[in-house]
Amino acid sequence: MSFLIDFEPLGRRVACPPGRSLMDCARSQGIGVSSVCGGHGTCNSCKVQVVRGAVSPPTPVELKTFQQHELQAGWRLACQALPESDCKLHVPPESMTAAQRTQVEGLEVAVTPQPAVSAFSVDLAAPSSDDLRADSQRVVDALKEYHGVECRAVDVDVLRTLSDRLRSWDWKAQVFVRERELISVAGRPARLLGLAVDLGSTKIAGYLVDLLTGQTLAARGVTNPQVSYGEDVISRINQTLKSPTDGRRLRELVIEAINQLAAELCRQAAATVEEIADAVIVGNTAMHHLALGLPVGQLAQAPFVPAVSQALDIRARDAGLRLAAGTCVHFLPNIAGFVGADHVAMLLATQAGWATGNVLLLDIGTNTEVSLVRDGEIAAASCASGPAFEGGHIQDGMRAAAGAIERVRLDNGTVQYETIDGAPPVGICGSGILDAIAQMHLAGVLDDTGRMANRHPRVRSRDGRIEFVLVGENERPERRAIVLTQKDVRELQLAKAAIRAGIQMLLEASRLVEKELDRVIIAGAFGSYIDVASAITAGMLPPLLLDRFKQVGNAAGMGARMALVSRAEREKAARIASGVRYVELSGAAGFSRTFTAATYLGRYQLTGGKRKEAG
Amino acid sequence: MSFLIDFEPLGRRVACPPGRSLMDCARSQGIGVSSVCGGHGTCNSCKVQVVRGAVSPPTPVELKTFQQHELQAGWRLACQALPESDCKLHVPPESMTAAQRTQVEGLEVAVTPQPAVSAFSVDLAAPSSDDLRADSQRVVDALKEYHGVECRAVDVDVLRTLSDRLRSWDWKAQVFVRERELISVAGRPARLLGLAVDLGSTKIAGYLVDLLTGQTLAARGVTNPQVSYGEDVISRINQTLKSPTDGRRLRELVIEAINQLAAELCRQAAATVEEIADAVIVGNTAMHHLALGLPVGQLAQAPFVPAVSQALDIRARDAGLRLAAGTCVHFLPNIAGFVGADHVAMLLATQAGWATGNVLLLDIGTNTEVSLVRDGEIAAASCASGPAFEGGHIQDGMRAAAGAIERVRLDNGTVQYETIDGAPPVGICGSGILDAIAQMHLAGVLDDTGRMANRHPRVRSRDGRIEFVLVGENERPERRAIVLTQKDVRELQLAKAAIRAGIQMLLEASRLVEKELDRVIIAGAFGSYIDVASAITAGMLPPLLLDRFKQVGNAAGMGARMALVSRAEREKAARIASGVRYVELSGAAGFSRTFTAATYLGRYQLTGGKRKEAG
Repeated sequence: MSFLIDFEPLGRRVACPPGRSLMDCARSQGIGVSSVCGGHGTCNSCKVQVVRGAVSPPTPVELKTFQQHELQAGWRLACQALPESDCKLHVPPESMTAAQRTQVEGLEVAVTPQPAVSAFSVDLAAPSSDDLRADSQRVVDALKEYHGVECRAVDVDVLRTLSDRLRSWDWKAQVFVRERELISVAGRPARLLGLAVDLGSTKIAGYLVDLLTGQTLAARGVTNPQVSYGEDVISRINQTLKSPTDGRRLRELVIEAINQLAAELCRQAAATVEEIADAVIVGNTAMHHLALGLPVGQLAQAPFVPAVSQALDIRARDAGLRLAAGTCVHFLPNIAGFVGADHVAMLLATQAGWATGNVLLLDIGTNTEVSLVRDGEIAAASCASGPAFEGGHIQDGMRAAAGAIERVRLDNGTVQYETIDGAPPVGICGSGILDAIAQMHLAGVLDDTGRMANRHPRVRSRDGRIEFVLVGENERPERRAIVLTQKDVRELQLAKAAIRAGIQMLLEASRLVEKELDRVIIAGAFGSYIDVASAITAGMLPPLLLDRFKQVGNAAGMGARMALVSRAEREKAARIASGVRYVELSGAAGFSRTFTAATYLGRYQLTGGKRKEAG
Repeated sequence: MSFLIDFEPLGRRVACPPGRSLMDCARSQGIGVSSVCGGHGTCNSCKVQVVRGAVSPPTPVELKTFQQHELQAGWRLACQALPESDCKLHVPPESMTAAQRTQVEGLEVAVTPQPAVSAFSVDLAAPSSDDLRADSQRVVDALKEYHGVECRAVDVDVLRTLSDRLRSWDWKAQVFVRERELISVAGRPARLLGLAVDLGSTKIAGYLVDLLTGQTLAARGVTNPQVSYGEDVISRINQTLKSPTDGRRLRELVIEAINQLAAELCRQAAATVEEIADAVIVGNTAMHHLALGLPVGQLAQAPFVPAVSQALDIRARDAGLRLAAGTCVHFLPNIAGFVGADHVAMLLATQAGWATGNVLLLDIGTNTEVSLVRDGEIAAASCASGPAFEGGHIQDGMRAAAGAIERVRLDNGTVQYETIDGAPPVGICGSGILDAIAQMHLAGVLDDTGRMANRHPRVRSRDGRIEFVLVGENERPERRAIVLTQKDVRELQLAKAAIRAGIQMLLEASRLVEKELDRVIIAGAFGSYIDVASAITAGMLPPLLLDRFKQVGNAAGMGARMALVSRAEREKAARIASGVRYVELSGAAGFSRTFTAATYLGRYQLTGGKRKEAG
């Protein structure tokens, strides 16, 4: 008997025999939980949080290490705690030896800065018996007199520090004004900075931007800590509905992650969060709602409507974010319950690519958003592609972290693979799975229906389970093999069929066929790492010439930065969002027939529910 | 280790760590032991009797305050005595901050309602597969379609509850809109209510108003709980500067008091705080700053400027107030560091009374604000009248609570008095002191300089102290006598001279003399209880015919209500405030000579530094 232990945010599931510690279990599969002292409970570097399941009672060492409330929250040392049931663990970044690969780079679009916030220098006269004006009035008057700016209000958090600061700065200051409101003051010199955040279900990308030049000063990606509460947004929504406490916790986790991200970006750029006077956050609708504490119940049941779709300007403090005093955070608009502001940001960033012709845009993930533009008219849909591309529900699947197999080639019965960072193989991530399946199909190991042939030397049957051995026990001493099972193949078929069927439904709604597509723009972290040829061979993407595909990386992050530096871009985003025609796939006529046809492997064209061998 | 302290007759038991005073202990639990001086042992207002248990030896301050037999009976100052075991204390009524008489009534001015917030009923279509609009969009669209109202924003706290509420209300709701922002939703039927607060240093008056009719539905006064940190604003400011923790606590205390007041007003009117969609708060500048968490250091040192003078609209949640979701609280403008929004509100409410002629307006308290209007031109000053009118620094002084002597007549050597609520006499409050001094002056017990004659049967000398016996030991069994000492008379002379001199300085600044005053308007709780004839006889007010005086009660509360129900009144208040010419008295030429002349008792006219017997 073994317990199944889920290591989050890695997304690795490992079997652990009774009597072995969580650390033993991690090590047995090469999962990088930090251990400075070698497992003696003295270094505290292997702190993990048991989110679900039972473990042994705290040892004396742990009682010394943790406070009561930490133990109650499930914090333990991996080297001390022994699982007593199946468990889910949250491994915080500081307890990991290598971080998950998070993508922040991508498409770069130059935008003329036209920020929503302006900065002004003011030199004030100190109060005297002849000049008894209130401290804030002095600033307001100076703005009018020297800069022609008429302020109608001063944010209360500015007022709370202004008097003491002006005196300590000898009545010279940099002030930030947004929509005729004084939102922040800083000692001179101070920069005018902005924070752009692409809030993904599994990854959060942050950018620190100089709002006067538009230049990105620092960029950084971190794991969304909500993953320990559920891999996909649906499980997080359900968790929130089941337990309001968990809902609050989910919100706190992501907000604290953004706060830390902002602080870290500032460290990189030798700035302070007090210089961040504007921010833009984009995310899918569920992430948007969870981060703002908006209700999600209506997202989880038909007809799946958002609480709000319009763009929002929320005071940073009302969102729990620690930026300059009265900073407002701009949230780009959502399109529908499952097509969110991140998709709007992606459309904004790629506008030059879809302004003309017939263009398909994809952001592939647990949920895949697809837009089809025909002569500037946008139709969008959401495909429930599931967690397979993130390694979920896959025997040896994992997210894109060090040691993940990300490239696979079959060559005369031998397997060639590459891992992230060249580390010893630990599991296989989405792009590796897609490669493997394409290669197996080309080698005849998988037929068009996805059935695994038994005759290949690397195919074997274990416990009545047919599996393809990617890395054998002999190639990975003292560890078990890394395999792709028949069931894994089925999971991937469902995932890719959801996307392919979604594309097809949009094409039909726009009265187009696949070969009329002039361009296919693939955004997002996963989309930028996949081998497009493999995706076509696996039947996930239509069989077009490779030069029609463009992988643009984190385009949502670029869109967020564009909206950050320019009010005109915010308006453009609002226009784009309100112009999108949303196509609901669930229950749409013909969808299930198309979906079934799209589960097949191989290069083929799809028309209605029919496949046609690609030319 | 802590000692357990029983506060009787409250029946409160509180743990007190060693090294903390009984006052600290009382404060820690919000027990309202009075502290005029803020715990410096100078005001004698925190007298308590240690009935059981051991406390530290009497300090020099206490040895001076109490007679030997009082000390033997366990009388101590709560700010000086430190418990050394578990204790039981008797807190006499005169040392309690609670149960004080608070005034909410006064001048009533009818105003045509023109509220800043509007209420609309909306009946919405439920979402369906043909109508996937976001929940908030449905409301925004309905407002536009059925009411012609274009909302530009929806408050985030509305979004946080809207989806679930609309569903539970079957898509029918009452929505509140302020400046094109949707700030709250309620189930139908819901009223549109507002809260007006006059935030005084010792008293808080609250009014619940129907914003559609302008009708006051409930009114209530409570003691400002900050009084346990110091009766006057200066000691509270000093406390805040010394300890930021105490500053936060002061803020929390007053905000919580307003929250409770709002809840209680709602109970009286069978309403809920969720129906309160607008609020106006007025207070003196220090109270305004302390309640909003604004810095007060610059208020405490020359040239005494406020952090902010303009009117503020602060989101209720940013002020810590629990009202309808996105409600904004309007704070009327301040005029100067010691002439605040409460004075502006008073000027607003009394405008009809000062629109023509030469009019003097007074709000008498620890700090007395005076305005002089000449042909519509307003000059204002602040007089440091000190705590004597609140019973501070007066041997047997107390605030206007049950048992306080509020009226005194001398009749052939006998003293006739009235107490508040007709309760047995406990001490003497401001109006009583003023009466007593006027009567003593008329009877020749006090000469013009305030010196107490020794020959009156009720004048005696105790421990080298000359005192006038108001209530003798024989008239008040088992308690000591209630007296007015020579020192008490001096205290009152300083207090009333500050006011009289302030009036004189304003008259001179406007080139007027006292007899040219057409009207004198006296506002505020204290001002409405004083006997004007006594005030003239004591030389506090100029000797005009009594029919020129008008006591208007809580005019600031009326002004707050006017600004609450009408945007036009808010604008009027802003115009009044910006038109006031502030006259700084401290250091003004001739002030000290005028002040000295104004310390004299009797009916007299004042010109420059000279008194002239009144005709």
